[in-house]
Amino acid sequence: MTRSSLQPVAAARPSPRPDWTALAQGVADALAPDAAVRDRAGASPRREVELLRETGLLALLNPVAHGGGGGSFADALLATRIIGRADASIAQLLAYHYLHLTNAVWRATPEQAERLSRGSVAGQWFWGGASNPRDPESRLTPEAADGFRLNGRKTFASNAALADKITLRAQLGDGFAVIVVPGDRGGVTHGNDWDAFGQRLSESGTVTFANVRVEKDEVLGDPAAPPPPRTSLVVPFHQLLIVNFYIGTAEGALAEAARYIRTTSRPWQASGVARASLDPYILEHYGDLDVELRASAALADVAGQRFEAATARGDAITPDERNLAAAAIYAAKVHASRTALEVTSKIFELMGARATAGHYGYDRFWRNIRTHTLHDPVAYKSREVGNFALNGIITPTPLYS
Amino acid sequence: MTRSSLQPVAAARPSPRPDWTALAQGVADALAPDAAVRDRAGASPRREVELLRETGLLALLNPVAHGGGGGSFADALLATRIIGRADASIAQLLAYHYLHLTNAVWRATPEQAERLSRGSVAGQWFWGGASNPRDPESRLTPEAADGFRLNGRKTFASNAALADKITLRAQLGDGFAVIVVPGDRGGVTHGNDWDAFGQRLSESGTVTFANVRVEKDEVLGDPAAPPPPRTSLVVPFHQLLIVNFYIGTAEGALAEAARYIRTTSRPWQASGVARASLDPYILEHYGDLDVELRASAALADVAGQRFEAATARGDAITPDERNLAAAAIYAAKVHASRTALEVTSKIFELMGARATAGHYGYDRFWRNIRTHTLHDPVAYKSREVGNFALNGIITPTPLYS
Amino acid sequence: MTRSSLQPVAAARPSPRPDWTALAQGVADALAPDAAVRDRAGASPRREVELLRETGLLALLNPVAHGGGGGSFADALLATRIIGRADASIAQLLAYHYLHLTNAVWRATPEQAERLSRGSVAGQWFWGGASNPRDPESRLTPEAADGFRLNGRKTFASNAALADKITLRAQLGDGFAVIVVPGDRGGVTHGNDWDAFGQRLSESGTVTFANVRVEKDEVLGDPAAPPPPRTSLVVPFHQLLIVNFYIGTAEGALAEAARYIRTTSRPWQASGVARASLDPYILEHYGDLDVELRASAALADVAGQRFEAATARGDAITPDERNLAAAAIYAAKVHASRTALEVTSKIFELMGARATAGHYGYDRFWRNIRTHTLHDPVAYKSREVGNFALNGIITPTPLYS
Amino acid sequence: MTRSSLQPVAAARPSPRPDWTALAQGVADALAPDAAVRDRAGASPRREVELLRETGLLALLNPVAHGGGGGSFADALLATRIIGRADASIAQLLAYHYLHLTNAVWRATPEQAERLSRGSVAGQWFWGGASNPRDPESRLTPEAADGFRLNGRKTFASNAALADKITLRAQLGDGFAVIVVPGDRGGVTHGNDWDAFGQRLSESGTVTFANVRVEKDEVLGDPAAPPPPRTSLVVPFHQLLIVNFYIGTAEGALAEAARYIRTTSRPWQASGVARASLDPYILEHYGDLDVELRASAALADVAGQRFEAATARGDAITPDERNLAAAAIYAAKVHASRTALEVTSKIFELMGARATAGHYGYDRFWRNIRTHTLHDPVAYKSREVGNFALNGIITPTPLYS
Repeated sequence: MTRSSLQPVAAARPSPRPDWTALAQGVADALAPDAAVRDRAGASPRREVELLRETGLLALLNPVAHGGGGGSFADALLATRIIGRADASIAQLLAYHYLHLTNAVWRATPEQAERLSRGSVAGQWFWGGASNPRDPESRLTPEAADGFRLNGRKTFASNAALADKITLRAQLGDGFAVIVVPGDRGGVTHGNDWDAFGQRLSESGTVTFANVRVEKDEVLGDPAAPPPPRTSLVVPFHQLLIVNFYIGTAEGALAEAARYIRTTSRPWQASGVARASLDPYILEHYGDLDVELRASAALADVAGQRFEAATARGDAITPDERNLAAAAIYAAKVHASRTALEVTSKIFELMGARATAGHYGYDRFWRNIRTHTLHDPVAYKSREVGNFALNGIITPTPLYS
Repeated sequence: MTRSSLQPVAAARPSPRPDWTALAQGVADALAPDAAVRDRAGASPRREVELLRETGLLALLNPVAHGGGGGSFADALLATRIIGRADASIAQLLAYHYLHLTNAVWRATPEQAERLSRGSVAGQWFWGGASNPRDPESRLTPEAADGFRLNGRKTFASNAALADKITLRAQLGDGFAVIVVPGDRGGVTHGNDWDAFGQRLSESGTVTFANVRVEKDEVLGDPAAPPPPRTSLVVPFHQLLIVNFYIGTAEGALAEAARYIRTTSRPWQASGVARASLDPYILEHYGDLDVELRASAALADVAGQRFEAATARGDAITPDERNLAAAAIYAAKVHASRTALEVTSKIFELMGARATAGHYGYDRFWRNIRTHTLHDPVAYKSREVGNFALNGIITPTPLYS
Repeated sequence: MTRSSLQPVAAARPSPRPDWTALAQGVADALAPDAAVRDRAGASPRREVELLRETGLLALLNPVAHGGGGGSFADALLATRIIGRADASIAQLLAYHYLHLTNAVWRATPEQAERLSRGSVAGQWFWGGASNPRDPESRLTPEAADGFRLNGRKTFASNAALADKITLRAQLGDGFAVIVVPGDRGGVTHGNDWDAFGQRLSESGTVTFANVRVEKDEVLGDPAAPPPPRTSLVVPFHQLLIVNFYIGTAEGALAEAARYIRTTSRPWQASGVARASLDPYILEHYGDLDVELRASAALADVAGQRFEAATARGDAITPDERNLAAAAIYAAKVHASRTALEVTSKIFELMGARATAGHYGYDRFWRNIRTHTLHDPVAYKSREVGNFALNGIITPTPLYS
Repeated sequence: MTRSSLQPVAAARPSPRPDWTALAQGVADALAPDAAVRDRAGASPRREVELLRETGLLALLNPVAHGGGGGSFADALLATRIIGRADASIAQLLAYHYLHLTNAVWRATPEQAERLSRGSVAGQWFWGGASNPRDPESRLTPEAADGFRLNGRKTFASNAALADKITLRAQLGDGFAVIVVPGDRGGVTHGNDWDAFGQRLSESGTVTFANVRVEKDEVLGDPAAPPPPRTSLVVPFHQLLIVNFYIGTAEGALAEAARYIRTTSRPWQASGVARASLDPYILEHYGDLDVELRASAALADVAGQRFEAATARGDAITPDERNLAAAAIYAAKVHASRTALEVTSKIFELMGARATAGHYGYDRFWRNIRTHTLHDPVAYKSREVGNFALNGIITPTPLYS
């Protein structure tokens, strides 16, 4: 499945298509050398977003007809994974960009969708969101003439501080609307308060909406109608993007460990071997990590195929079809979360004590994974995998499952 | 990749091809109802081999041009997996049949290969082997006129007791020959001494060769020449077949557990739920097993693709290409071994105490996996996965890696 | 703490005390040689109970003043563990004997307690029970003159089929009574239907009470009154006995594996060592199992100390003191369950493929542990350990926590 | 066993003895409130060493006859564990102080030992070391008149930068001498280069010895003679100290998690409970961590008892007795290492995403444990546990096993 994921099935194919793998690898190569330094500095990732913008990766999912890259979801997921190998924070930025753009397009009317997509390509928009369901709901209040006012405060507002467009959910009367507002709209302020010990460049701080004017057309689709069936795939897509940057991070960590073992580790004195890379326990335990990580990647790829198949159904998708894909994705999420935690912690046992030196900054791998894997509790994802297998259902938890 | 795996790449495709999945499922459906009873009885699996023979699965890999099924290795692996869901012993029989047939064909001259393949189809041969490298080598002694005499004794001679043809390795002068002898050739006797606590129907007992006459043409290929490069894939193929019946066994066990939980398990009194299938810990832990098993299957499928790609190279395959496939397969082996052990032991925690009743025979799942996963030490497979990643090599261990 | 556990604190000490460790070891030595054979035969353990009777171990807990052995609970637990090293079923018989005797004595009036204890010593009684709370409650119906009639049916009635005395719980009016009836009382019949795949000699089949006459004095204590506070320790005692025979079983399995590795295992061909006991992975993984088993034993001993301290409080024990001991015991239960499962399954990876030969019967270790560890779900025990730590409480689940 | 560990067995007991537990708790209480702040600052722990000095904990092990505290090794280990609950770095400082003092005393002649012990009490000395065997050996060169010159460079020189006395091993002729030099002796310089991501206050940087004058009497014992048998317990003591501050660190982390869960965590939206501390998965997984940590502590206490028993043998200790204690300690080391890693990483899954906020500094628990558990490879400790069980030996690896 390589059709452009946000365009109609019948749309014309571009020729030749960009080599997304190479483009993502280029970004990764640019990010890798000073990843530790940038992690320590913890500055707002303006330069990094600019890098994503310049490569065209922000428009990967947009149809060629809109000027976009015409890439598939598989392309987007792989790009996220590749960049995660070099810098988990920046992979998260790209992941949430794809998420919030896709969420907006899927929720929008066809006209809105086309306008947003074309605008996004033309303006090289970087997308963010502000819908953390664990905070009080933001509220949309109709204004006398037309349009609305938005008030609210959301923590963990991924990408929002640097975003050209912010997709968010807000209460409107008895229901909910999904809206898109420009990041620089009056009344939108950013706390710049993201200080978690991991994903330090991911700009996941607090955003506040104080009487922000929202135009009528910034409300996507018909808020009075049930959301389009395809939007039931937004949460699985979110989780699948996460899976891919976890795997990328773990792959990057393991590759760095391999490099270090080959070039820097010293053989243990009781090992009887001349090089650390021949130590029987390093071979075995490296192998064990490699096995788990290969399994995570294989499972993520299967989940990606299920997701593509589900998205191909468009609004014809049934709840069972959606849950089939969701269960595959949540299984991949559970596996990737555990594997990435294990890999990023155990690599040190392969590299040895000197790998803890501060200048390497190798603890960032674990800090990054440990921080983001708390997005939602992995035990509840295991539960839903079991729930689907045993009962054929998935517990509906807004924005989480 | 679905070309017939033992035929030249350019060979004509049959039309229509058999539905191997359905055929294997038919065998599984026939085996499942009395699997526990047959495990307890532990009789020689004559009826079961007959069942495999009748379905045509024995000829799956043989080219259509030879009258065979024209199936791919992927078809063979999937058939093994499907049958493993119902009966791990019979899946092992089929797996070793494919192994010993393939080994013979790959080792043979083109003429021998065609004759063996055509003969196998025409005679509905069931193949076995007798090459356990942990026993003393069998010996081939030239006879005055022509031909040879074979002497030796091999334990763990999979399939041999019921085999029409036995593929084996024997010392010949300073080197080794691979030969094929009929199972009923004079001097071939079977110990019928397989009494392991698992894989009880797998006919893996001892075979003795006492002055067995071996015709010149029963020696495959040129024993004085180096073995054809493609035969470097025999061990990976062996391991990949194993992987698939482990996964099948675990899938069968987990499916049976799901059925039992839904229909028979009672909710725990402290659970506060009305049905066992709603217990939070059963959901979570079932989910965890499902996640691991999905991962094993995904990894096995990736390994299968790597194997197909490697076999497609034929005798042009390089050691690096072979090791790339081998490492993928050994990773799948490590994962499947651990997962199958975990699944077959932990399902009881989901089903509850009454599932230990003897008449269910559910312990056979663990007994089967525990027995066969000792084929070769899994720690050494982890080591080779690490070895390939860190050093780009795989330790050459005859018939094991 | 080594006072006789069922006598008043101030009671006279015997001199010299029996060497319970040596007595238990004698039983273990007698049971070990044909443990595999007896497991296969699966006969009712009449000879084995006789062996326990002859050694005096059945009277270990009874006060010296009653003619008993004057042993401590620690002595009883250790005896259970030692016998478990040789035969897990017989260790279970002894464990449940101590449980049902203790339960009766703790529940009884002082007069009943003394009479039962003296009678038990004099008659060398073997105790059983029939209170499985997952079955419908047995019912006690008052008879016109005096006494009662007992009706009911209980599965998993440990020891009952061979017991001189059966302790059981039955509904009486709106409440419950604990009673003791002779095993040969009219109307008591045994299903002899225990056919689990493990603990095959543990006599845990079904018992039926059909209009069984129960004398007034066979009802222990005052059923109308709240149970004596010390009886809140019956469930922890039950669990602690279980812990000890799990640990014994695992210790026996690991010791047998060590013996086998030293004497029978062959070095792996890729290991480069002359003896299996020098293989780096066997050393590592044996070490890992040994570490976990040492930890289980240490934790069980700590739990035993907490239990002795709690029992020393007699009826002055508070719920918090009880829960402190219970949490320690449940922690030991979780650890021992997991460790025993791991040890009994993984030893095969250390011993190698030939250790699966049926005549060794080594699979019985796993079958025994797998069967009994389903007594109650280990996840719920983890929950209570967490519950005590986080909330200072333990969920009251009748007869389970 | 509570005799003063560095004095002769028959020495007079002090009365009353200090309450070491209370003193250590006092230090912990002083360190806890700003542990996160001090970790971030990463300053040299001068104030913290002063705190240890003021409490008298530095003299805990010294005999009362020398003016010391007369504490036992068990007291020293427990003090280390208690302080570890509040600050893992400072616990390490205290642990290495006990190690290097004990090493010096055990190696010394009786006269040297008494002088060092009395001097240590009187001068409130803080001890360090500089013997990392993975660096080139330091060298001791005899001077014409008498005495020696010391040259060398050692990384990971624990405590040395703040030490009043540095114990170290240096090559002397064909053999090795153990010497004690004042920390302020001319030619001793400190790199102040400790920048690992964990144990940031542990002062484990590089020390350089440039033509440092060493007096004759600063060479301990007779370097030409074999080391006294009791010194075979130095490595086990080192490892046992480590075990105790790992356990302390994990206990501190888990206690902090419990506090956070009770006061700050919010219930998950799909949990259906009102408080996070009632979430079924939080209860279960907290319980699982508690179980493992209780097991680690129980095993460490058993190892401590074995160690005390071994030290009580003095120079009469045999290699087998030594190895019996060493194996118990290495088992505790393996368990504590794994458990502390698991606890310090998994607590976040119980606390939730907001616990990653930088101001809590909760990642320091994992960073501390991850850093120090690389002191020597845990796989090799598993190997020695297995080696002792299977072969009755422990591989002699200088300063490591």
